[in-house]
Amino acid sequence: MCIINAYDALIKSKLKPVCNIKFFFEGEEEKGSPRLAEIFRKYKSRLNSDLWVICDGPRHASGKKSIMFGVRGDVNLWLTVYGPKRPLHSGNYGNWAPNPGLMLAQLLAGMKDDKGHVNVKGFYDDVLPLSKSEKEALSKVPPIEPGLKKELGIAEPEGGSRPLVEAFMLPTLNINGMASGNVGTQAANVIPTRAEAVLDLRLVLGNDMDRQIAKVTEHIKAQGYFVTDKEPTDEERAKYDKIIKITHDAGYNAQRTPMDLPIAQSVVKAIQSTVNYPVVLIPSGGGSLPLFIFEKELGAKVITVPLVNYDNNQHAENENVKISFLWEGIETIAAVMQMK
Amino acid sequence: MCIINAYDALIKSKLKPVCNIKFFFEGEEEKGSPRLAEIFRKYKSRLNSDLWVICDGPRHASGKKSIMFGVRGDVNLWLTVYGPKRPLHSGNYGNWAPNPGLMLAQLLAGMKDDKGHVNVKGFYDDVLPLSKSEKEALSKVPPIEPGLKKELGIAEPEGGSRPLVEAFMLPTLNINGMASGNVGTQAANVIPTRAEAVLDLRLVLGNDMDRQIAKVTEHIKAQGYFVTDKEPTDEERAKYDKIIKITHDAGYNAQRTPMDLPIAQSVVKAIQSTVNYPVVLIPSGGGSLPLFIFEKELGAKVITVPLVNYDNNQHAENENVKISFLWEGIETIAAVMQMK
Repeated sequence: MCIINAYDALIKSKLKPVCNIKFFFEGEEEKGSPRLAEIFRKYKSRLNSDLWVICDGPRHASGKKSIMFGVRGDVNLWLTVYGPKRPLHSGNYGNWAPNPGLMLAQLLAGMKDDKGHVNVKGFYDDVLPLSKSEKEALSKVPPIEPGLKKELGIAEPEGGSRPLVEAFMLPTLNINGMASGNVGTQAANVIPTRAEAVLDLRLVLGNDMDRQIAKVTEHIKAQGYFVTDKEPTDEERAKYDKIIKITHDAGYNAQRTPMDLPIAQSVVKAIQSTVNYPVVLIPSGGGSLPLFIFEKELGAKVITVPLVNYDNNQHAENENVKISFLWEGIETIAAVMQMK
Repeated sequence: MCIINAYDALIKSKLKPVCNIKFFFEGEEEKGSPRLAEIFRKYKSRLNSDLWVICDGPRHASGKKSIMFGVRGDVNLWLTVYGPKRPLHSGNYGNWAPNPGLMLAQLLAGMKDDKGHVNVKGFYDDVLPLSKSEKEALSKVPPIEPGLKKELGIAEPEGGSRPLVEAFMLPTLNINGMASGNVGTQAANVIPTRAEAVLDLRLVLGNDMDRQIAKVTEHIKAQGYFVTDKEPTDEERAKYDKIIKITHDAGYNAQRTPMDLPIAQSVVKAIQSTVNYPVVLIPSGGGSLPLFIFEKELGAKVITVPLVNYDNNQHAENENVKISFLWEGIETIAAVMQMK
């Protein structure tokens, strides 16, 4: 809406964009953009450009206009551990039949320490260092942690006093969800047949998706698990006391565009012209976009200009966008379309 | 159905019960029989008896007719641990906002070791020992573990080679269910706001429900948790980095009737007369019934005669009873009604 209205406003104001503008809308980002590479290969010649400007995700939590020069990569791992083949009465089999919920809890518990450090061997090893200008930009990002802690009801964040934006520069291991049996009114006195978890691995520059998956898989094997990618057979169940099914989505790696490229500085200048406070410059955002594929398939330069409010409940119930941010988004994009 | 048809069969066969028979049906057992004590107090004089015979739960997994002289007690604990007040994008807050799923996993993981031993301090301390005749009965229970392991797809049970029936003689800590965020097609890249678990604590003779809850609560406190019984306030969230809500259901303690009472031996003799193999005598079953309340409120003697097949998927989907077990159940109960 911001992009289209920005363009519309320029036309109606008899202002002209200073360059050719191509619009590209893709609707599968939340499922990993599995067809994007194919589309790029098919329409490569029509997608030539000096710069891609991507509008996705929220502005910095300070509320200030923001520019992100990179994004994390992302891959989801789906884990299932197995208990008895049929659900069992927790009295008649308790203390005897292994509980898959407990097994999963013990597996997940060991993946991070209570400071938020991931215990998987080599998890941080291939992270590429930031450049001097990226480090400098990081140091200028306004602190928002005290307000966020209060708003979100968090006494002590992972990483202690490390700023949120510095956490963006590291890969993550997040438990998106876990489930075994039922809770609440559906709960029953059973030993469930399985326990499932979905892990979200965010990747930074230097990480490779397949390498990161392999590290987590090796960690799980080191806990004594037999790893499979399908439901275990009776033979496997008879042989191994700990069985886990691991599968993953398409996923993609991180991408980062150097902040000091002339074209990157032009974007900064254009957006800076619309406000009287320093625009927040973030070397790499916390979220993920398949910008890696833009580089790989098109050799493109990519910069992300997020437009919406940070408290938008993205990916959850009551997802929202504030009208004032829509309005400022039009202004921001119009400025980019006019950048020199 | 077995009880009513057994009585009906006696009448139609012109046989007479050898004693007065009172029928008592209660329909709230699966929710902890919260009104049973009140009913007992109200109708105490009408409920006088020499013996209560309770028909609940499955026969021994050997398929043989069984008598249980006791039951475990039971109480459910409902745990909720807290993350951020609203669900957060796992990229924009990953490595920073604490994940309640991880917190819960770490809490549950430490409650049992990988041999199935409960690590909660004093968990087994107040268990009363078995009598000589109870120990002897235990040693005669037919082994069913190899078949069960194969049927249920279990390579290594908790407690290793310890017979299932011996596991019944100890208190349990079972994870009935746990949940945080979503898994499967509902999963999203979020840091959820909470994680929940339902624990099932089975109790044996000597355990006290409130003491057992206190032990688990102390264990949780020792992991650094602030314990509350309601949703945390903003002040509590600001003060404590680990908050857990713990509540529990009504619950009740275990009960055990000495096997060598003359009236107990009469029940054994009656049921033994219907089969040509040794009836399985179990000092205390793995399941739970509020028989503790029968003793406390009525001073009653209680024996449980389970009637249905062990593979009945009790408490789970496809719960079932085999017709042959219904038929043998009628026979069993008719014999008890005629016992001398």
